[in-house]
Amino acid sequence: MDILKRAKALEVQGRTVCHLEVGEPGAPPAPRVLEAVAWALPEPQGYTNAKGLNALREGLEGYYERQHGLQIDPELIVATMGSSAGFILAFHTAFQPGARIAITRPGYPAYVNTLLGLGFGVAEIPVSAGNGWRLTGAEIAVAHARQPFDGLLFASPANPTGASVSREQLADIVATCARLGVTLISDEIYHGLDYAGPSVSALELTRDAIIINSFSKYYCMTGWRIGWMVLPEAMIRRAEILQQNLFISAPTLSQIAASVALGERDYAEEQKARYAHNRHLLGQGLRELGFDLPRDGDGAFYAYAGIGQFSNDAMDFCLTMLDQAGVAATPGIDFDRTDGNGFVRFSYAGKSETVENALERMQDFLRAGG
Amino acid sequence: MDILKRAKALEVQGRTVCHLEVGEPGAPPAPRVLEAVAWALPEPQGYTNAKGLNALREGLEGYYERQHGLQIDPELIVATMGSSAGFILAFHTAFQPGARIAITRPGYPAYVNTLLGLGFGVAEIPVSAGNGWRLTGAEIAVAHARQPFDGLLFASPANPTGASVSREQLADIVATCARLGVTLISDEIYHGLDYAGPSVSALELTRDAIIINSFSKYYCMTGWRIGWMVLPEAMIRRAEILQQNLFISAPTLSQIAASVALGERDYAEEQKARYAHNRHLLGQGLRELGFDLPRDGDGAFYAYAGIGQFSNDAMDFCLTMLDQAGVAATPGIDFDRTDGNGFVRFSYAGKSETVENALERMQDFLRAGG
Repeated sequence: MDILKRAKALEVQGRTVCHLEVGEPGAPPAPRVLEAVAWALPEPQGYTNAKGLNALREGLEGYYERQHGLQIDPELIVATMGSSAGFILAFHTAFQPGARIAITRPGYPAYVNTLLGLGFGVAEIPVSAGNGWRLTGAEIAVAHARQPFDGLLFASPANPTGASVSREQLADIVATCARLGVTLISDEIYHGLDYAGPSVSALELTRDAIIINSFSKYYCMTGWRIGWMVLPEAMIRRAEILQQNLFISAPTLSQIAASVALGERDYAEEQKARYAHNRHLLGQGLRELGFDLPRDGDGAFYAYAGIGQFSNDAMDFCLTMLDQAGVAATPGIDFDRTDGNGFVRFSYAGKSETVENALERMQDFLRAGG
Repeated sequence: MDILKRAKALEVQGRTVCHLEVGEPGAPPAPRVLEAVAWALPEPQGYTNAKGLNALREGLEGYYERQHGLQIDPELIVATMGSSAGFILAFHTAFQPGARIAITRPGYPAYVNTLLGLGFGVAEIPVSAGNGWRLTGAEIAVAHARQPFDGLLFASPANPTGASVSREQLADIVATCARLGVTLISDEIYHGLDYAGPSVSALELTRDAIIINSFSKYYCMTGWRIGWMVLPEAMIRRAEILQQNLFISAPTLSQIAASVALGERDYAEEQKARYAHNRHLLGQGLRELGFDLPRDGDGAFYAYAGIGQFSNDAMDFCLTMLDQAGVAATPGIDFDRTDGNGFVRFSYAGKSETVENALERMQDFLRAGG
């Protein structure tokens, strides 16, 4: 946030800034999505039922069939106000306040802040660069033996590392959770943005996990605030009641837009092709500049690069780079309060020109001594 | 919810139903609102800053100046995903989990369910038909002496009773809260829909209350999921951080729509004129039919009518009336688990024809013995 505010202040002064700090696609949703919304606009958009429009949930049924070969009952699906509301519903559906939920470190900072803000406890499981930042069942078991927890909130692909687990690795995580009696919340909001092969849903391995997903990233709909959950049968009634009381229903136009977006994967794949190009470009460039990035992340649109050669204070490094080079990136300390000072997260969700321009600017900046 | 599901099932069978159970306007937002959204549609709608678009918050600054003669710093305003997200933010900003919040009985059922679902305690303060269902400072003090509470969540106009307090009555409530050290959350989502005079905001009397408001009712934007909060200066930073982490930001197109809606009060007043007409029509009709409704509610678009002459089981009465007369209304038990069986809530937010038709159907139904 400090970086974003500073970047905007610089722009007000007339400076140009390469925005590699924002985790959102630069493109609008697919044209057909916008057409459907324009068409629906004159109608009164009232509340929908709590779980969401049937058309959307049936569209998601088709999505699971086509993408994952799964039969998912639309009655187990809840359309949410972005994955944000999905997390709140998931925590309060599965746990009592005071329960402890494990997350990876580094990880998405809103995880910790949401859990603590809502009165839950947090257990951090460190993941390591040497293992491509991928969480393992063994790491879960070690952390649980040290101090038990009730739930695990896990994302693949992950923010900020871009780490994705394979089917076997996810099966190990699922089996470990089952063995330990830990409820798994699988954050699949970057699904579709895996560069090595199709994303694997926890639903392919278990029906006991809560699945959180979103139209924000793959379908370019961040500001539309629309996501969904798939719940175990034993939890769906409680989730529906909580949704009805806490949120009433997800935004109606966004639900209509999302229903159409599911059929526009060609457009989404065009965006992904751009990220894939940027991923290579940025990874290569960062390595040439001396950043520590042994390999490109598996998915999402982030590079989490070591800055040991330049600094041991990520926030200072990012602020200086922003002021002197006009390149905005996010300090690792935002994602990892213990070891994050050695890392910076670069997002490559933007234009390729932005990535190229940022690399040139960073080269001058680092040559001049950082 | 049972009534709504049953009503939809009847409609699937080809029956017509007069919907007096739904608490939402039947009209779309003002034409200029839709034009602005259509115009913004092709642009990528990314996240906004956590507090919301400056244009919206500056629009709200003007709203407080024009409607209430108040100077409100836009930095104290947060755009929320409907008032729903506003309540969650308010509770977690002002209280620790486990805190007890007082509400009126009867009252909006999501209050109780949200508070309990989020791990807060609830204290119910009964209000009485004899006093027009208006809460008084004395009632607050009595309830607090019996069992103390940390907060009071209070709505004027209120759902389901339509009760509104005057400036003097609100001042009494505000002063009582201040004296008892109780944090006031003022739910002002039905503001604009007062039939006796302008709505009075708690902001006119104190800057220590959290104000919750919404574009859903007066501006006909329920499905758009857009509302706002005004926070005391001492709470705004915590609220902003919670908003950032729990929700990121309110839906962007809805924020744009809301900014424009603030300037379209003529359209909103046209809708209100229809509710005012319906209010008279429905109140008169219900009294003639033998419902106990000494006077029409002060605001919102609800009549909370006693059914003592017909039944002592509101749910049974509503289900029978729906099945036999095709009139859907909400049983009082949804709003008051203690005394609600003697009451039914009728919404007059729909068309006047619907109200007229419902009254005719009820007349036949009640003449036939109910």
